[in-house]
Amino acid sequence: MDATSATDSPPDVCPHFHEAIELIGKRWTGAIVSALTERPLRFGELAKAVPGLSDRLLSRRLRELEEEGLVERDVRPGSPVSVTYSLTPAGQELRPAIVELKAWARRWRRAG
Amino acid sequence: MDATSATDSPPDVCPHFHEAIELIGKRWTGAIVSALTERPLRFGELAKAVPGLSDRLLSRRLRELEEEGLVERDVRPGSPVSVTYSLTPAGQELRPAIVELKAWARRWRRAG
Repeated sequence: MDATSATDSPPDVCPHFHEAIELIGKRWTGAIVSALTERPLRFGELAKAVPGLSDRLLSRRLRELEEEGLVERDVRPGSPVSVTYSLTPAGQELRPAIVELKAWARRWRRAG
Repeated sequence: MDATSATDSPPDVCPHFHEAIELIGKRWTGAIVSALTERPLRFGELAKAVPGLSDRLLSRRLRELEEEGLVERDVRPGSPVSVTYSLTPAGQELRPAIVELKAWARRWRRAG
């Protein structure tokens, strides 16, 4: 309406939000985090929970998530060695965002 | 704990959630949607709200968001023509997920 409004200060996007959404929106990452919100999982269980994801890429994403402090890897000696992945406290706190996005997806993406 | 647990059915990731998180997690898309949750914006305002994004890529992302039914484009004749982008009802309903993710980013990504 106002000829000068294009020069008004637009709402700035928080760079931390920007970084966070692209972190968990990266291909396969959101699906992996979502599976781990249910319970800690072994590598093979994660691979089954996210069909279509190669073992190689799953390994890479898990390593990235460890580096970001969202996932931790628990290795228990034994035969065979048991390796379990779980969310750190920071990873667990993504749960409300994931719950909201799941609800949205159920409402709006069913037909998609 | 249980030697057979690796063969238990793992929690399946909802394909609609998977698609949704990668849709809004796509490079720049989350930032664009987040800016539009504040109010409808003109192209130039959006460009300012998301620094670092080229006009060409902003156009492409807006077109994708229109195709996905999350953003609508309102063209008002005049001199100059006024083009405003706003969220559709489906886009507006992403707000709770974005609010949760912003809160998470504030808590956990500040130092990042």
